[in-house]
Amino acid sequence: MMQTLGYYDGKYDEIDKMVVPFDDRSHYYGDGVYDATCAGNHVIFNLDEHVDRFFNSAALLKIEIPHTKQEVKDILNEMVKKVDGDELFVYWQVTRAVAPRNHVFPEGQKGRLWVMIRPSKIGDPSKTLKLMTVEDTRFLHCNIKTLNLIPNCMAMQQAVEAGCDEVVFHRGDRVTECAHSNVHILKDGALKTAPCDNLILPGITRAHRIAQCKAMGIPVIEEPFTVQEMMEADEIFFTSASALCCRIEEIDGQKVGGRDPERIARIQKAAWNEALEEVRQIKG
Amino acid sequence: MMQTLGYYDGKYDEIDKMVVPFDDRSHYYGDGVYDATCAGNHVIFNLDEHVDRFFNSAALLKIEIPHTKQEVKDILNEMVKKVDGDELFVYWQVTRAVAPRNHVFPEGQKGRLWVMIRPSKIGDPSKTLKLMTVEDTRFLHCNIKTLNLIPNCMAMQQAVEAGCDEVVFHRGDRVTECAHSNVHILKDGALKTAPCDNLILPGITRAHRIAQCKAMGIPVIEEPFTVQEMMEADEIFFTSASALCCRIEEIDGQKVGGRDPERIARIQKAAWNEALEEVRQIKG
Repeated sequence: MMQTLGYYDGKYDEIDKMVVPFDDRSHYYGDGVYDATCAGNHVIFNLDEHVDRFFNSAALLKIEIPHTKQEVKDILNEMVKKVDGDELFVYWQVTRAVAPRNHVFPEGQKGRLWVMIRPSKIGDPSKTLKLMTVEDTRFLHCNIKTLNLIPNCMAMQQAVEAGCDEVVFHRGDRVTECAHSNVHILKDGALKTAPCDNLILPGITRAHRIAQCKAMGIPVIEEPFTVQEMMEADEIFFTSASALCCRIEEIDGQKVGGRDPERIARIQKAAWNEALEEVRQIKG
Repeated sequence: MMQTLGYYDGKYDEIDKMVVPFDDRSHYYGDGVYDATCAGNHVIFNLDEHVDRFFNSAALLKIEIPHTKQEVKDILNEMVKKVDGDELFVYWQVTRAVAPRNHVFPEGQKGRLWVMIRPSKIGDPSKTLKLMTVEDTRFLHCNIKTLNLIPNCMAMQQAVEAGCDEVVFHRGDRVTECAHSNVHILKDGALKTAPCDNLILPGITRAHRIAQCKAMGIPVIEEPFTVQEMMEADEIFFTSASALCCRIEEIDGQKVGGRDPERIARIQKAAWNEALEEVRQIKG
């Protein structure tokens, strides 16, 4: 078993031994898209959906992935078997091409597939988190999971320096999402979450929580909500492939949520049961 | 003499032989800034100003460049001597760090300096160009010369597919800039150009044209202008370090400008004389 495993365009090695050509377009333009999820007991969570979204992100930027969906899944499934650890972070991306720097796409080139697998902890549902609000200055393509992530990095650094775990982005009054997760509120028994447009990533964990809430009889309202609505919500939580479903207890130094603990506990339990069930089913 | 020359973190080679570690943060986040200019007869144009802007871009993102300004200039000046060609493209960037993927900045790391030098043609002032308008969907940090350039690449590809040479970005009615140049208009004998805010790059060639216009008695108005004002302007031109000063004759298929040919010719001539003068002074 290896400690980490990387892949670039047909080559495999430990990540810190891997190298990439100087003219890969990620270097000049961040010109690529990615997707990521976790693996538990060497089973990748929601792989079909993540690979579907990966191909969708690439298509929106006219990047040609040099494999079929099944080939990407096969590469990932083979790779997770070789890395040590019960809980793994499974990350992959495609960059447009290797070519001399020019904004215009090089002709007749296929993308380069990258994979990176390493040990990682899946989010602890008993932990409650602190957030800070940050004005959302990102581009208007947040529905695409691109490698243009400087504002997300800057915001996360700002959060950590302020003793927070994540940020909540807002455009003016309107809450969009977090730096690497979707944010949701519970109010009067219903789940409210921003609709899927160009301002948020269509989170796969988000979609699963919505489906589970509907199945549990919790009404779901997919509408924008404001910073004030969030601060006054009964509960606030974020979702991501690696965090599953985390409660938020403080935003900008103010205590928030905590007024519907039973419902949020049901949502969190459903999230964990689903992940465990997936491992069981595949492992048999 | 070499055909191209690359540099990464202390290592030099022909660009197509150079490689970069897998965990360089440019790969995951496009987390870096760059600057670029031309060299004529192995003299780099406006090097002090480009290096000043480079350090300013890095400071705005809290990226630590692992060299002094003088060291960067020395590396660049030494490198341009070694590459064949009267006209060279001189490009350099700094990426935040090499570290396992994490949005938060890794601690105690300095940036990695990259340089890329290759033959290139400096813009031909006799050529007139065709542009197309594109809604500006970029992030709100366009004053920083970052590696997050997907919207610029997408727009340039769209332009080329439409038979155009560049795009003009606009946010609603307001013209911002082009995908890799600044855009300006002449109206009633005055130069009008967007002010330096977070929506445009503070172009060094832009600043030089402004200074020259003032010296030649052409009034300069640094105020936002609209798409309609541009379409009705007497002349339209764009500036960049590699294009110097190019006239625009068509936007979205409509003939534009051409109503103040003498003034635009004076501006173009001043631009070229300045570049030639710089080479002469340094070469002695």
